[in-house]
Amino acid sequence: MLAMPVTTQRTVFFLSDRTGITAEALGHSLLTQFEGVEFKQLTLPFIDSPTKAQDAVDTINQAHRDDGSRPLLFSTLVDAEVRSLISTSEGMMFDFFDTFINPLEAELGVRSSHAVGRSHGMGTYASYKVRIDAVNFALANDDGITTVNFPHADIILIGVSRCGKTPTCLYLALQVGTLAANYPITEEDLEFTDLPKVLRPHRARLFGLTIDPIRLQQIRTERRPNSRYATIEQCRREVAAVEELYRREKIPFLDTSTVSIEEIATTIMHMTNLKRRMQR
Amino acid sequence: MLAMPVTTQRTVFFLSDRTGITAEALGHSLLTQFEGVEFKQLTLPFIDSPTKAQDAVDTINQAHRDDGSRPLLFSTLVDAEVRSLISTSEGMMFDFFDTFINPLEAELGVRSSHAVGRSHGMGTYASYKVRIDAVNFALANDDGITTVNFPHADIILIGVSRCGKTPTCLYLALQVGTLAANYPITEEDLEFTDLPKVLRPHRARLFGLTIDPIRLQQIRTERRPNSRYATIEQCRREVAAVEELYRREKIPFLDTSTVSIEEIATTIMHMTNLKRRMQR
Repeated sequence: MLAMPVTTQRTVFFLSDRTGITAEALGHSLLTQFEGVEFKQLTLPFIDSPTKAQDAVDTINQAHRDDGSRPLLFSTLVDAEVRSLISTSEGMMFDFFDTFINPLEAELGVRSSHAVGRSHGMGTYASYKVRIDAVNFALANDDGITTVNFPHADIILIGVSRCGKTPTCLYLALQVGTLAANYPITEEDLEFTDLPKVLRPHRARLFGLTIDPIRLQQIRTERRPNSRYATIEQCRREVAAVEELYRREKIPFLDTSTVSIEEIATTIMHMTNLKRRMQR
Repeated sequence: MLAMPVTTQRTVFFLSDRTGITAEALGHSLLTQFEGVEFKQLTLPFIDSPTKAQDAVDTINQAHRDDGSRPLLFSTLVDAEVRSLISTSEGMMFDFFDTFINPLEAELGVRSSHAVGRSHGMGTYASYKVRIDAVNFALANDDGITTVNFPHADIILIGVSRCGKTPTCLYLALQVGTLAANYPITEEDLEFTDLPKVLRPHRARLFGLTIDPIRLQQIRTERRPNSRYATIEQCRREVAAVEELYRREKIPFLDTSTVSIEEIATTIMHMTNLKRRMQR
């Protein structure tokens, strides 16, 4: 046997009886607190039988042998037998269910159902329909293709070309069922001091996106290299003008340069008091 | 003062210094274990100062007075001062950070950075670009618009019209940066026993979706009421034929009827060994 390597690499397993999305989110938010440690992150989803649990144990123990340090396990496993099998592995278990479910039972005075696979209750027809309708709405009302549906929109994102409107609308549609349209503010629009005419009746539902001109230049260069559209001067001019427009028209806005799509979407919901259409 | 109402309603707060997405996922997976309790769920995101923490405390205490039972608090708050302020509230705190970070520090032999706002490390240009490119790819290669980019696709979803291909591709693009195309299997395609010609060179990257015919009928009826397309006979015939095609051609496939888009996407990744393009 080789000597234990002195290493700061750790293997991390996210264990779940379903998708593992919650275990990943949970473990990830903890791991980002530890700099200088390199984490090799693996998700083992759909562990819903003793056989699969035993396979997971073997995988975990193999990682222990390979790394020389014990793996970290972030688990949202619900089934008692599966959890008990996993606990026989050589990993260090962070058991989300075990840690919180007992105090919750005591507080609520209710026994938990210990039913597996409830964490994403989005499989019903009603919530599927909300999402699909929202995705279709976002696709049909993207980039100013049409403005006839603006009266039905929950929110209308505006901004210069390539500032992040489309992915934000799609994210809002998929994650919260929002009816999100978007409209590109063009160079021509910015020659006028007023809001583009088609937007005026919907002012209360407008939300502006802006972006660092250097970042915008990068994104536009990817799309149309060596075009006037992608020059830094053009990007600077458009961004300055659109921000001026937002301020003058008192349209709430957000700089998307250094935040993730999740954060853009959540911030918009927070700033505009947008309600979720999708049940949780 | 009114008598305390005898109620099984509880207010639940998800507290975060960022979007609250992790706290929601975490709390939600616990709450779904308790049937018969009605939870009123509120997210308080972006609590990143003592002032905002104090506002949150007031909101929590007000809910206590309104409900007559103490609210449940699911927190991913990182900042020590903010957490300490929240702990003065009348809510019952489930502190994700406090519970897990100390054992992790001991195990890793590293002090955690206690830096706020690291849980979604997707704000970098590199990961933004991966996502945006993936979203653009999904939009440009949706519904068989074109097949010229199929050689660049990580995965090509196939299935009858309205079985969930588009939202799944968009979800894969936004969440993991997958280059996902999709191609509708039409009635005409199903008249032949072979795979449609354009798909044959890409067989290894095909993944089939299927759906319960009754569900399909519901979805198609929404779109085109009273059409032949939306009849149960037509839906039954297409679904039976496409499943037969998948089996004959040994294409892995999944029934989307009762699972969420998250679960469809994760299952596909799991079954096809699809790697994330996006860093976590």
